[in-house]
Amino acid sequence: MKRLARRPEGVTFPRDFLAAGVEAGIKPGSKGKKDVALIFSPVPCRAAAVYTTNRFRAAPLVVTAEHLADGLLRAVVINSGNANACTGEAGIVAARRMAAVAARELKVESKEVAVASTGVIGVPLPMERVERGIIEAARSLSAEGGGDAALAIMTTDTYPKETALSLEIGGREVRLGAMAKGAGMICPNMATMLCFLTTDAAISSELLQEALRECVADTFNMISVDGDTSTNDMVLVMASGLAGNPEIKEKNEDYRLFWEALYQVCLAMAKAIVRDGEGATRLMEVRVRGARERESARKAVRAIINSNLVKTALFGADANWGRIVCALGYSGAEFNPARVDVYLGDIPVARGGQGLPFSEEEARTVLTGDEVKITVDLNEGKEEAVGWGCDLTYDYVRINADYRT
Amino acid sequence: MKRLARRPEGVTFPRDFLAAGVEAGIKPGSKGKKDVALIFSPVPCRAAAVYTTNRFRAAPLVVTAEHLADGLLRAVVINSGNANACTGEAGIVAARRMAAVAARELKVESKEVAVASTGVIGVPLPMERVERGIIEAARSLSAEGGGDAALAIMTTDTYPKETALSLEIGGREVRLGAMAKGAGMICPNMATMLCFLTTDAAISSELLQEALRECVADTFNMISVDGDTSTNDMVLVMASGLAGNPEIKEKNEDYRLFWEALYQVCLAMAKAIVRDGEGATRLMEVRVRGARERESARKAVRAIINSNLVKTALFGADANWGRIVCALGYSGAEFNPARVDVYLGDIPVARGGQGLPFSEEEARTVLTGDEVKITVDLNEGKEEAVGWGCDLTYDYVRINADYRT
Repeated sequence: MKRLARRPEGVTFPRDFLAAGVEAGIKPGSKGKKDVALIFSPVPCRAAAVYTTNRFRAAPLVVTAEHLADGLLRAVVINSGNANACTGEAGIVAARRMAAVAARELKVESKEVAVASTGVIGVPLPMERVERGIIEAARSLSAEGGGDAALAIMTTDTYPKETALSLEIGGREVRLGAMAKGAGMICPNMATMLCFLTTDAAISSELLQEALRECVADTFNMISVDGDTSTNDMVLVMASGLAGNPEIKEKNEDYRLFWEALYQVCLAMAKAIVRDGEGATRLMEVRVRGARERESARKAVRAIINSNLVKTALFGADANWGRIVCALGYSGAEFNPARVDVYLGDIPVARGGQGLPFSEEEARTVLTGDEVKITVDLNEGKEEAVGWGCDLTYDYVRINADYRT
Repeated sequence: MKRLARRPEGVTFPRDFLAAGVEAGIKPGSKGKKDVALIFSPVPCRAAAVYTTNRFRAAPLVVTAEHLADGLLRAVVINSGNANACTGEAGIVAARRMAAVAARELKVESKEVAVASTGVIGVPLPMERVERGIIEAARSLSAEGGGDAALAIMTTDTYPKETALSLEIGGREVRLGAMAKGAGMICPNMATMLCFLTTDAAISSELLQEALRECVADTFNMISVDGDTSTNDMVLVMASGLAGNPEIKEKNEDYRLFWEALYQVCLAMAKAIVRDGEGATRLMEVRVRGARERESARKAVRAIINSNLVKTALFGADANWGRIVCALGYSGAEFNPARVDVYLGDIPVARGGQGLPFSEEEARTVLTGDEVKITVDLNEGKEEAVGWGCDLTYDYVRINADYRT
């Protein structure tokens, strides 16, 4: 599998996908910043999506779920600067209107268009600007437009997040591309994680949805910047079939190859989001192994990456394993405290639930690295889980204590 | 009910209780700071306790639970500076030794002594110093020693937490006193919430335990500084019966009076802990009402007071109701998003899940107050819950990113 990093055209890397990103003036006082993005496929795509579990599911997610009922899409229209969340029936009307305007310009049907939004919660969309933006984006579509689209979905992200990758399936080169935005919430209420994936693979809707759900569970659902699950989170994939590989209809070797490629793309985007977490200076990769049940390992990982005390210790490069076991203790995971081992990088710092002598200097070298690996062994079974988090810093507080307007 | 605030002798306010706090040198480099406390009753007391749900339950909690099996106690011995947690079998031996030394000095049985510790996790107790401290404390016991004891259990608390109260039950003045320490974790691993209550009320062990469990559920279990549940949390009450009231053996009017007094004392201590939360500048009281089930209201309150985004908005005095509904949305509470109303103080900021126009200036006045009231009405039923949290500030990060040694 050949990994193609830093391609400027993430979502336009797979054959024939077009994209654009334009400035429509939706973000108040952010002149010069793009805020409407469009992704378009000239042929109908099999599509699949997963959505936030937050009960305040934003209007665009409701509309996208409707449009995706038949598993087919040709376009995605996205705005930043306004989440269209907690906007009631008017919000639903606005989201439908976004799809309708894009469909009209692209000469497709409304139900072939998915909609996403990110930005302030509870404020009506400025529809005149949004519509002008969609029209301009439709006219700007190009095979080099992926980079502009990635810029247009940013809110407090400090850099655009794209990745692309190709592999051979059934004798044909299959491509995958993606763009994402992260958990930046500066303005604030910019509380959204979005990821859009494109591929020219030929694959059935059912397997596409299953692969996406599984990959998201192990990547996007295992990252945390601050433990707050947004109202607008969405991961969406479109598969055009233009690669010409024999359509993947069962869980054969082709499926396994595609699954692994999708996982790699999701993982790259998920890690990019954490690395660009608000105020973050350092990434942590937390692995909990030796669990009897996978779900216990996941719970333990999530408690550790979400613990403010672990996160501040990471910021201070403090080899504070007591906070790791403390988080493990309230995680709800099943384990025996007297069997727990903890490692910082390769350094064992606790064994059987008790501290070990270790070199503070060596620990500090591990903890000041760019990506800090923390491993917990429950010594109970063979299941494991991995997750990614970032440190909690002064800048996180500064960014989020800033007044909205 | 007469509330007696700021009495220097919180736990020694009820008749005949004695206490002491001494400096034993357990906290490294903290010369002049008391670190061993003792509470003693000349007569056997009915006692009840609730403990942390963290699976890494520290050694002193294990020993206290054993000693409390018969529901009787005469003394509590407490050290700060070392949590005696994640210390294995040696930790259990050390905790038993603390009880044994106190029992020998006080001429009571070991099983009449409860033990508590707070401080660094995973480091063996310096037993020689601890024993000397216990001996000195036993010799220093006095009816005015409550204040010293409250000082001796502090870690990163910025002030001691005590309260006392008296009421009439069955024609007799019944007194309650309490001391607590909070969720300061500066050094760090100082991850403990402790509260010790004394009363001269005559009440059965069963009702004392039941009243304590209920009061803790609505007070200590509804506060959060950072969502991290410690390995050492303990709330313990001792009732001597010396008030001479007819023993409370059933849920009559006397029980109701005692319950309410116990609740008031627990509430005062719980709020004092949040107010003194690490780096906190502001207290929030979050009320979720109109729930169909009490547990839904509790889940919603906990999600809101634990949200880093709500906490930073509180620090920034930002009327950011979108973050409140976002936390509500992922809380796991049962409700219909389209029926939710939100108030900041008395100002309605959202109705039916959608934003309302409101005066930012008036909202700012509410949010810069010392105690900020946030009310969420689910408009589904008649159940409600209240909880207390604090803001997330630069100082929280500074305190917790500081290196341990």
